[in-house]
Amino acid sequence: MATLSGHTSAIRASRVIGTDVKDNEGNVLGKIEDVVLDKTDNAVMFAVVGFGGVLGIGEKYHPLPWSALDYDEAEQAYVVPYTKEQLEAAPSDTINELTRDDGTLNRERAFDYYKVPRYWN
Amino acid sequence: MATLSGHTSAIRASRVIGTDVKDNEGNVLGKIEDVVLDKTDNAVMFAVVGFGGVLGIGEKYHPLPWSALDYDEAEQAYVVPYTKEQLEAAPSDTINELTRDDGTLNRERAFDYYKVPRYWN
Repeated sequence: MATLSGHTSAIRASRVIGTDVKDNEGNVLGKIEDVVLDKTDNAVMFAVVGFGGVLGIGEKYHPLPWSALDYDEAEQAYVVPYTKEQLEAAPSDTINELTRDDGTLNRERAFDYYKVPRYWN
Repeated sequence: MATLSGHTSAIRASRVIGTDVKDNEGNVLGKIEDVVLDKTDNAVMFAVVGFGGVLGIGEKYHPLPWSALDYDEAEQAYVVPYTKEQLEAAPSDTINELTRDDGTLNRERAFDYYKVPRYWN
């Protein structure tokens, strides 16, 4: 059952943005910078995770399948089953480039890299 | 074709939030307060439009189907085919209540009221 206080499957985008992303060991890998939405099929295309860089300089942005992010109440973070090394080798780009071509290119790259089944045809 | 400068079907949630919502006459009805996302089916459940109220007191929040919002470049706003009167009579609640029961109740109310085909089964 959903409760007001608990974390449910319905979540406000404004609360997702800025939340830490950690690995299974509890190490902070980065944070959710944004969520890319699709007007045409009512879908969440991918989350944008930023990590590395200081004061935004040299920061890399990674598209991650939304379904790959699991919120951990105790950690108050999204926990992903990837290591820092896996993320470093993952598709990344500037935050503006990620939505180029309607985001479809980066969506494909991300879902393929993380081996998450595509939600689209 | 998608371009970097133009508005495309891929849009960042952080850019959606705070955008004005206008009627067909160009009157500001309110603005997008948030977007409610669903973890379980990778979907945008609904947008939350706030209007009325002063300094947030007495403000009403309306769940609107994401697909009902069309971005108008010239107006720099989402334009909806509804009048202020239609919105005033529409389902609304506090922003916290909107995500109660995983948002499914308000999603149903909104899609039914605006006669938007359901994207879920």
